[in-house]
Amino acid sequence: MSAVTPAVLFDRHEALLNRAIEAIHTREYWSPYSENLKKYPEELVKSAPEDFKALCNQHFELEGPATTKKITGERSPYGLDLGTSYDQPDMGQLVDVMHSLIPQWRDAGPKGRVGVCMEILQRLNDMSPLMGHAVMHTSGQGFMMAFQAGAPHAQDRALEAVVYGWDAMNAVPATARWNKPQGKMDPLVMDKKFTIVPRGVAVVIGCSTFPTWNTYPGLFASLVTGNPVIVKPHPAAILPAALTVKVAQEVLKEAGLDPQIVSLAVDTLEEPVAKDLVMNPKVKVIDYTGSSVFGNWIEQNALHAKVFTEKAGVNSIIVDSVSDLKAVTRNLAFTLSLYSGQMCTTTQAIYVPKSGIDTPEGKVSFDEFAQALATATSKFLGDNDRACMVLGAIQSEATAKRIDECRSLGEIVLDSESRIHAQFPDARIRTPLILKVDGKDQATYSEERFGPISFLIATESTEDSMRLAKEVLDEQGAITLGVYSTSDAVLDQAEELAMDVKVALSCNLDGGVFVNQSAAFSDFHATGGNPAANACLSDAAFLVNRFVVVQSRRHV
Amino acid sequence: MSAVTPAVLFDRHEALLNRAIEAIHTREYWSPYSENLKKYPEELVKSAPEDFKALCNQHFELEGPATTKKITGERSPYGLDLGTSYDQPDMGQLVDVMHSLIPQWRDAGPKGRVGVCMEILQRLNDMSPLMGHAVMHTSGQGFMMAFQAGAPHAQDRALEAVVYGWDAMNAVPATARWNKPQGKMDPLVMDKKFTIVPRGVAVVIGCSTFPTWNTYPGLFASLVTGNPVIVKPHPAAILPAALTVKVAQEVLKEAGLDPQIVSLAVDTLEEPVAKDLVMNPKVKVIDYTGSSVFGNWIEQNALHAKVFTEKAGVNSIIVDSVSDLKAVTRNLAFTLSLYSGQMCTTTQAIYVPKSGIDTPEGKVSFDEFAQALATATSKFLGDNDRACMVLGAIQSEATAKRIDECRSLGEIVLDSESRIHAQFPDARIRTPLILKVDGKDQATYSEERFGPISFLIATESTEDSMRLAKEVLDEQGAITLGVYSTSDAVLDQAEELAMDVKVALSCNLDGGVFVNQSAAFSDFHATGGNPAANACLSDAAFLVNRFVVVQSRRHV
Repeated sequence: MSAVTPAVLFDRHEALLNRAIEAIHTREYWSPYSENLKKYPEELVKSAPEDFKALCNQHFELEGPATTKKITGERSPYGLDLGTSYDQPDMGQLVDVMHSLIPQWRDAGPKGRVGVCMEILQRLNDMSPLMGHAVMHTSGQGFMMAFQAGAPHAQDRALEAVVYGWDAMNAVPATARWNKPQGKMDPLVMDKKFTIVPRGVAVVIGCSTFPTWNTYPGLFASLVTGNPVIVKPHPAAILPAALTVKVAQEVLKEAGLDPQIVSLAVDTLEEPVAKDLVMNPKVKVIDYTGSSVFGNWIEQNALHAKVFTEKAGVNSIIVDSVSDLKAVTRNLAFTLSLYSGQMCTTTQAIYVPKSGIDTPEGKVSFDEFAQALATATSKFLGDNDRACMVLGAIQSEATAKRIDECRSLGEIVLDSESRIHAQFPDARIRTPLILKVDGKDQATYSEERFGPISFLIATESTEDSMRLAKEVLDEQGAITLGVYSTSDAVLDQAEELAMDVKVALSCNLDGGVFVNQSAAFSDFHATGGNPAANACLSDAAFLVNRFVVVQSRRHV
Repeated sequence: MSAVTPAVLFDRHEALLNRAIEAIHTREYWSPYSENLKKYPEELVKSAPEDFKALCNQHFELEGPATTKKITGERSPYGLDLGTSYDQPDMGQLVDVMHSLIPQWRDAGPKGRVGVCMEILQRLNDMSPLMGHAVMHTSGQGFMMAFQAGAPHAQDRALEAVVYGWDAMNAVPATARWNKPQGKMDPLVMDKKFTIVPRGVAVVIGCSTFPTWNTYPGLFASLVTGNPVIVKPHPAAILPAALTVKVAQEVLKEAGLDPQIVSLAVDTLEEPVAKDLVMNPKVKVIDYTGSSVFGNWIEQNALHAKVFTEKAGVNSIIVDSVSDLKAVTRNLAFTLSLYSGQMCTTTQAIYVPKSGIDTPEGKVSFDEFAQALATATSKFLGDNDRACMVLGAIQSEATAKRIDECRSLGEIVLDSESRIHAQFPDARIRTPLILKVDGKDQATYSEERFGPISFLIATESTEDSMRLAKEVLDEQGAITLGVYSTSDAVLDQAEELAMDVKVALSCNLDGGVFVNQSAAFSDFHATGGNPAANACLSDAAFLVNRFVVVQSRRHV
């Protein structure tokens, strides 16, 4: 008999749950997991690099169907081979095992599952410094970002999903007495039972750039609603997922449940298993982050499952007029530099009228604006140590190559250059490439160019910028849209555009908030209404389709 | 300027809305619209047949794009041609008009839309007696059922959808102030605006047997969440939809909105328009009730839209043992007779062990049970007037033919016969056909046979019944499942089966509640988790995907 039942775990975390419920309904600032490294135990922070190294060149043990097949091959964008190996189960067998666990996990009930999920998150939070290093050496993010985005921010997003799940499940009464008057006759009376029943086996397909942040919402959304979850990480970023699954399995086991309710499925770029997994008819829920090509394929083929995707898009900014040119270009320089533009929220297309923009100091021409942005970016990246920290490393060689290939697509406003990291000389580090193109070159700037590649687009007017942006956003989608204008009419027009193309809008960001940042419990990440993503992290729609309600009624 | 603004309408109906919110969260008995004909003004009830006739052989005027094309051809299953004609707009033009109305209806906001929807429902309720006749003479339902299911019960289901919509929209704050502490520095402060943005143009495709009950949930769900709605009724049952659209247009107009926000699209069996409509890329939400063939086609092809379907299935009952054989067979006789089995909830497959069932009077053999059911049904339909009232008429000639074709599928336990309606001698009236087959004849009983056709299936044991039912339900789906047993273990096993195949279960119905009845605000109609329907009427999942949230943020 287990001492820590799921019900005990619910009680343990109920106060935090209640605070989180309040947060999703006000969407004011709230974060349960600190992004301040100093709030974590000093010895854990200190030992984290060694703890990470201890995981390298080792076999990573997890619960799962017996197998003799081992996978290895992660290489840090900072230039070292991780050498960690993982068991690769037979995928059909794995799905069968997961399917057999449905009744057990379903019967744990909403409270039990919320308790288990929140305990997992608490323990993941405790190991945040280590997770920071695991994320850094798979995604290539600078350490501070890898720690923040990969640990507390990812945990925030996970809890957000858990809480939306609780809210949705809790809105359905477990039982009801139905008492229908029949005039002078006795009433009809029935007892009804409503059970939250999961869809089936869930699969979460992760990406290499945000191995936890983009995996956790789907993982915890499926888990809390009763679906056993297979985590299928990107072959280049397995370790953060493996650490996560390990923690989940420990908590499940301690709570007297089968640890395999959360399992890991690893593969290689050469022999991918994702298609096999998602086309297994027992798989009923799929979360995917990655390329549009495969994401669209899943949406079009896995019709037996509920599919939640985050794919590529062309994030855009419309510049009309500014009240502080320096502040604006400084803000944009940071956006374009952070993690070398490898965020699904980084701006690629910046629309500026050929005739220039109004500033308090008078008209600034298109070329002057371009120059100001180039200067701000160069200056921001002037200190090499800070630059390396902000830029991080380029996750894949393909992205590094893409920078080279894109140089010829327009007139170079700022060229991309390589940098040498003081601690990791083999790290693949590149500064942003900024190109100048004409509004008519839509084929050039309307294709997603993943990485530190952006286009300054010369348009006929702000109205023309809006029109071009609408065309591109309708077709390609986006997660972020920005606008700079001192005119309320233009801001209103931008809001109308944002609603039309269903993209989140940021207006006049010129301080410490950046268009590519989204805060859990406040910002909705993606709308689910344009081609860049068919789901939003997280809202009710992200949760309610992962389960159905099965009722049973009988006379009293 | 309109006197009756949407906001005024919200205030007018707010008390009822609040009561309805309570109802969806307790799912106890509640019905806002009376099913008692006597509660309606006597003069309206009396004049209803004449009011209906006044609509026949007339052109039905509605707001819509100009057109010269007229459609007519509805024929009552009671044997008269309605002769009502309707304008048929160009479908591409209609969708364009609806698309242009999105901002107007979106900007009415959640409160305004709830107000408009509830006012429409109030006015539909006022005309319930007339609607009863319109539904009777299109669906073929007996008048009392046509009145109840077609008017108050349909209105209940509509309000249920409106309330789930309100609940979902209201859970998203309209604005938030985000105030993030920055240690000793000034906090980061942003104002955020969250707008409910509809997916696009919505289409609701109705069926001929429940022209309002199955149309209203999709219609009101899409409408309340901001999507202009095209109602595309079945060519055989246009009038109830046209009356509904007329009321909606009147309310919209009075509220200062474009009446075309709800529009009618009619077609004929010979030249259907549904494929064109659903494949129009501006159509983003589709509700469909009808055959599995076309429903599956929509699900597989209209990937640009959110699709909600109710299709065919094989509703089943497992008989293990009973405490009152007469009461059980009486209950089943009513279920099989009501509207000649033309309900999406009527039982088709009844599994009974070959070895018979336990009763307080001892073992009753399979054949004795079959005979008891046949006798109960014959007796129940003994009085011809009552029989005609309960049976109603067979909606389509195809269903009548199907009865004849199915006679050879098994041994006849009770043959179907024609009846003559006292008032409508040309009415197409048929009593139930009950056949006996072996559990091994799965091909025979596992195909949906729409109409008054059911199978008593001889199985090896109750366990075998469960196994066979699971196979059929997994493959074909169902909306209802019943079980009769005096054993708690068997009832538990049936609940496990219901959760496994995701079908609502009714246990031991032997009184005044029938397996084919589902009560709004309490019973979830379909689970959305099996092949019979991909959606549930109504739950949160039925609403939340009809809109997205678009945010706009800026520094304070």
